[in-house]
Amino acid sequence: MKKRMLSYLFSATILATSSAYADQALRDRANAIFKPVPDKLTEVAGEKIMPAQVELGHKLWFDPRLSRSHLISCNTCHNLSIGGGDNVQVSIGHGWQKGPRNNPTVLNAVFNAAQFWDGRAADLKEQALGPLQAPVEMNNTPERIEATLQSIPQYVEEFKNAFGGKNPVTLANAARALAAFEATLITPNAPFDRFLKGDDKALSKAQKEGLGLFMNTGCTACHNGVNMGGQAYFPFGVVKKPGADILPAEDKGRFTVTNTASDEYVFRASPLRNVALTPPYFHSGEVWDLKEAVAIMGDSQLGRELTDSEAEAITAFLHSLTGDQPRITLPILPPSSATTPKPDHELPAQIRVGAADTDL
Amino acid sequence: MKKRMLSYLFSATILATSSAYADQALRDRANAIFKPVPDKLTEVAGEKIMPAQVELGHKLWFDPRLSRSHLISCNTCHNLSIGGGDNVQVSIGHGWQKGPRNNPTVLNAVFNAAQFWDGRAADLKEQALGPLQAPVEMNNTPERIEATLQSIPQYVEEFKNAFGGKNPVTLANAARALAAFEATLITPNAPFDRFLKGDDKALSKAQKEGLGLFMNTGCTACHNGVNMGGQAYFPFGVVKKPGADILPAEDKGRFTVTNTASDEYVFRASPLRNVALTPPYFHSGEVWDLKEAVAIMGDSQLGRELTDSEAEAITAFLHSLTGDQPRITLPILPPSSATTPKPDHELPAQIRVGAADTDL
Repeated sequence: MKKRMLSYLFSATILATSSAYADQALRDRANAIFKPVPDKLTEVAGEKIMPAQVELGHKLWFDPRLSRSHLISCNTCHNLSIGGGDNVQVSIGHGWQKGPRNNPTVLNAVFNAAQFWDGRAADLKEQALGPLQAPVEMNNTPERIEATLQSIPQYVEEFKNAFGGKNPVTLANAARALAAFEATLITPNAPFDRFLKGDDKALSKAQKEGLGLFMNTGCTACHNGVNMGGQAYFPFGVVKKPGADILPAEDKGRFTVTNTASDEYVFRASPLRNVALTPPYFHSGEVWDLKEAVAIMGDSQLGRELTDSEAEAITAFLHSLTGDQPRITLPILPPSSATTPKPDHELPAQIRVGAADTDL
Repeated sequence: MKKRMLSYLFSATILATSSAYADQALRDRANAIFKPVPDKLTEVAGEKIMPAQVELGHKLWFDPRLSRSHLISCNTCHNLSIGGGDNVQVSIGHGWQKGPRNNPTVLNAVFNAAQFWDGRAADLKEQALGPLQAPVEMNNTPERIEATLQSIPQYVEEFKNAFGGKNPVTLANAARALAAFEATLITPNAPFDRFLKGDDKALSKAQKEGLGLFMNTGCTACHNGVNMGGQAYFPFGVVKKPGADILPAEDKGRFTVTNTASDEYVFRASPLRNVALTPPYFHSGEVWDLKEAVAIMGDSQLGRELTDSEAEAITAFLHSLTGDQPRITLPILPPSSATTPKPDHELPAQIRVGAADTDL
């Protein structure tokens, strides 16, 4: 009896040890490819994040007066209650117009090498200028935005505190404040990050298997780094073009930015942080099921038909990328004054179309 | 020298004393008509407010999946960042359709005797059912709302905790949870409330003058109690009908509820708490300037042409009704599941119109 117990304990120990070895090997490989989301950012591209700018950006983020209609704020489409996106196929903006692409999350966007699906904005400051002015989104103009902000005494004060200078209430500074706030919208402490840092128990067996597959099948060629994507551009359909429903012929992706034939149907690799929270998937927003999206990626990007259980395991792994969501207090916005431009719900006379007019 | 000083001190004391007497007299009159907003409510109509219901209601309040489009939450039109309304003429809902009336604030709505401009909902529970289903607002159906909530495991759990019973995930319980949350949306500690409680310095000289005028000219006939309105119905134009721009002929107000000729153009007296935050004014939302609204009320309801300085003083007093705004944390919403009904942005086949279909 005693002997059998000892032998049992001995086997269990060997199993645990070998499993711990296997976990450490998996972790070592993963740590060479990925990086955990930090708990806090203090600077972006060498520039310190300034609390007064974050505080102002926090208000601007929720302020519907940045839109011509006074109905749409940044948070309308990048909703921080649901993973920083909008969970609809394509965003709906001014006049209930449909945007042309699915909405990328703002969470961890600070880690992307460039913004938008086609990377046409270098950073968050530049990105913020897009949706504010896109006729199918917030449909505003620089003049109107600046007149609005200048008409609100408390904003004038906060712009002064945040930026100083002679004429601080500008669209450019509003974009800087928004970017500062967005730099705080990161999601540390995902199960995957805890695994990277040494906690074997942070991932389930299926998730570890999925992580192994994710690295072995080559997903990591595009999805790597802290944001597991967002760093470089790749054709959708490296190996095999998906159907026209998923990759509509009219949206040529990065081609519209570079005008280079080789950039046709090229998009920035999607960052995968919090991907379980942000259906539907792809720039076309055509796929609601994450496992189906994984299978399509295997097929189109890697030329590999994943088995159902492989797709299942990778999907389980992707669920481990959901981090702690930022806890945000709803700001109390400073009231308008008599000179604040009034809301305007009319459709623009000329509804311009084309990816360059949108923010996605 | 000493004598002159003494005489000066003596006069100052008399002045201060007489001013303190005057303030106390004003306060006594005001306390007979108004009541301060309490710091916290613990029950509504004899029913205890349950924390689990408030917590669930807090999530539902911000959940855009209660709308057919997945774009519109309660907070879209009753925005807690800007005084619990939307600061546009009439609310804009599903398909960018315009609602028929200006949006009443949710703040302190728990103190109203009935809800909506025409009082057609007895309480907040009943009110919540309106916008959820109105085709020009959230355009949802009870079946679809219940299917949505039932498809989200964390909601099922929270409904169980909040309500118990065999089948707690119902539209009726969702409305109860929303009403519980809304009962927390009160704004204590306005300068006027501090004055009512004994702080002479809480109101400026102009505000005290305005308060006196507000009582002397008869505004208090309709605007009284804790919410300074919201308790009874009155014709818009008791003495003199305002122009058709401000009182459009087609909206007959409470007549649509009671079908009684004497209720034509009758509306619930607007509660005036936080009125400085909630332009534009009147059910038609036609007037942006609070002083102008005051002058119109004097004219149409009291048959009294207020002088500019009287309207100014009353307006100053109305600014003292802005209380502490509720500080709300943005909830993190539970994710959808595979069975959650998908967003639908199409316009309803038959766009029904008429006040009975709307929530305002």
